[in-house]
Amino acid sequence: MEFKLNSRELEKVLSKLILAIPQRSPIPTLENFLFEVSEEQLTISATDMQIYLTASIPVSSDGSKEMLIPGKFLYDIIRSLGDTQILFKVENDKVKLKTDNGVYNLSSLENDDYHKLPSFDKERAITFQGNVLKKCFDQTLFAVSKGEMGRAAMTGILMEFNKDGLNFVATDGHRLVKYTSLNQVTDINDQFIVPDKTISIVSKLITDSQVTVNFSKTNILFEFNDIKLVSRLIGEKYPAYNSVIPLENENKLKVNVKELLSAVKRMLIFSSSSTSNQVKFAIQKDLLEISSEDIDKGANAVESLQCEYDGDPMVIGFNTSYVNDVLSHVNDKECIFKLHSPTKAAVIEQIEKKEDEKLLMLLMPVRLNN
Amino acid sequence: MEFKLNSRELEKVLSKLILAIPQRSPIPTLENFLFEVSEEQLTISATDMQIYLTASIPVSSDGSKEMLIPGKFLYDIIRSLGDTQILFKVENDKVKLKTDNGVYNLSSLENDDYHKLPSFDKERAITFQGNVLKKCFDQTLFAVSKGEMGRAAMTGILMEFNKDGLNFVATDGHRLVKYTSLNQVTDINDQFIVPDKTISIVSKLITDSQVTVNFSKTNILFEFNDIKLVSRLIGEKYPAYNSVIPLENENKLKVNVKELLSAVKRMLIFSSSSTSNQVKFAIQKDLLEISSEDIDKGANAVESLQCEYDGDPMVIGFNTSYVNDVLSHVNDKECIFKLHSPTKAAVIEQIEKKEDEKLLMLLMPVRLNN
Repeated sequence: MEFKLNSRELEKVLSKLILAIPQRSPIPTLENFLFEVSEEQLTISATDMQIYLTASIPVSSDGSKEMLIPGKFLYDIIRSLGDTQILFKVENDKVKLKTDNGVYNLSSLENDDYHKLPSFDKERAITFQGNVLKKCFDQTLFAVSKGEMGRAAMTGILMEFNKDGLNFVATDGHRLVKYTSLNQVTDINDQFIVPDKTISIVSKLITDSQVTVNFSKTNILFEFNDIKLVSRLIGEKYPAYNSVIPLENENKLKVNVKELLSAVKRMLIFSSSSTSNQVKFAIQKDLLEISSEDIDKGANAVESLQCEYDGDPMVIGFNTSYVNDVLSHVNDKECIFKLHSPTKAAVIEQIEKKEDEKLLMLLMPVRLNN
Repeated sequence: MEFKLNSRELEKVLSKLILAIPQRSPIPTLENFLFEVSEEQLTISATDMQIYLTASIPVSSDGSKEMLIPGKFLYDIIRSLGDTQILFKVENDKVKLKTDNGVYNLSSLENDDYHKLPSFDKERAITFQGNVLKKCFDQTLFAVSKGEMGRAAMTGILMEFNKDGLNFVATDGHRLVKYTSLNQVTDINDQFIVPDKTISIVSKLITDSQVTVNFSKTNILFEFNDIKLVSRLIGEKYPAYNSVIPLENENKLKVNVKELLSAVKRMLIFSSSSTSNQVKFAIQKDLLEISSEDIDKGANAVESLQCEYDGDPMVIGFNTSYVNDVLSHVNDKECIFKLHSPTKAAVIEQIEKKEDEKLLMLLMPVRLNN
């Protein structure tokens, strides 16, 4: 059996599919691409059993066959070839790649059960502009629980659909972000939890083109121009996050985002090299003093920033990295910290109202060392 | 005691000095910068006891002092500050850095004996254009012995000065490179072995400006625009490398460098994933066939290239990575492999004669598996 392919075309597809191939797996056959050759097309798939990636290329073949070909090895060969025509000749488990100057012989394996795409009923779908969906993920992925502790649900992003808009929510228990995409129309009224690894891979595959997202009860399907991704959903209930968001944080601190972020990055140098990892906000009417220390090194830092604050003077501590994360995701010149007391969650919001998005972030305080 | 510095100016100097600071050292004080403040200048130094870096900045101070300041910590702080004026206030072991908005307190240590620059008599010096010296190192550093075995001398680059030019030689016993810089004038007639780590750091510090290189019996001093580097030399005798270079390799193979390099990179994919790491050259009058295999994967590759060859057909094996290294350092469209037999060293030379440089490389063959 034989068929022809252009190396660049194949390289482009493999460069995406390889994202699903695990580097080392207890199931070694997962380190392969599945090639399904029919007379009219070649379908290539890769999976780690949680995420399934698949793409098809039109070919003209004189037979059909399924086989597994070593993933990284094939990808390395194909991308080393430059722009050339490749003749694939398959005989039993031998795969011969022929170009004008070279012959490359590989061994293939028989197909296994693992590469089988989960069955998927296209029940409900929503179409996004690629850049819009990418932003939804970029704004939330940072706050997903890294999974050391806490519930499995929190290791994913909650996609919550209702008439008011689409909410993307992530939390690790210490901070929470709720990003709402307002201009997206859907009649879906449901919620799904997508694993963080799936989001990471989807973010790499997204271009500015449209992406259609399909949901079943247990799986999610992303349809890009040239490639499909199916991922398992996390089948748990997401924490009732709305009940954590304080509605009556009456003390409002308004700050310049760039200035505060720059100062926090310096505090990070002091706090992260010690064990405390905390930054102190001492807030007065028009002056915010932030400070941090590294006790081991006998070092500390204090900076003063202008602010607008309408409450009683307050001293509150935060995890420096988390403040850094939150401020890095504000898309506005200024933001508001809504505070109640040094032991209650702070709510961070942008000032400018936007037509297409809403952003709310929440930061738990930490108990100060002194 | 106090003095002022611009953050950008200090950052520029520290970014270079930090190259000498070891990440972890059995002598923890080496992880510090030495600050020597006088009334007119600040001299900062860093060392790993093999390489000493030092730079001076004019300052106006009301006192003088020597102290050690944590290296990476200070550098991180300074480069986080943006462009600003810093007031250094020193009191006992406390160092206070003041900017418009912030105060940063550090602890310093007393100076130790380790940061002392080795004494250096400027006996002999030679001045290079930065780009010329950089090229001498770039052409040779790859072949230096990584030091797993073999002599200490081979872990450095030999700088050999005589009337005919300056030779830069490196070898690890499997390959050798001799790069000659022809247009450099010197009356030095001697040879020195510079450690590979020193060369790596010097390569990072070189700009297009002039560099003056001074030699003593035991040390080498590089003087850049704004910084000085002193390194110990390797006090061993370099192997008599000239006796290894075969003079009568009568069989000449002429190949296109880019084509062969491209093919060798593909062979690397096959050979380096197995244990063999070898590539076979089967050489005929006008056809070079190179091949490689990965026995574990049941995979192999063969490519054919046009060539010009004036000897009897020969099959010779090389380490694929070493062929890759050698071809990557040829600065010509075509090169010549001068061969004698499958068990004797191959000599690789450029075809075009250049006025300012000469390049000779040598590659030991390997015994083929089959």
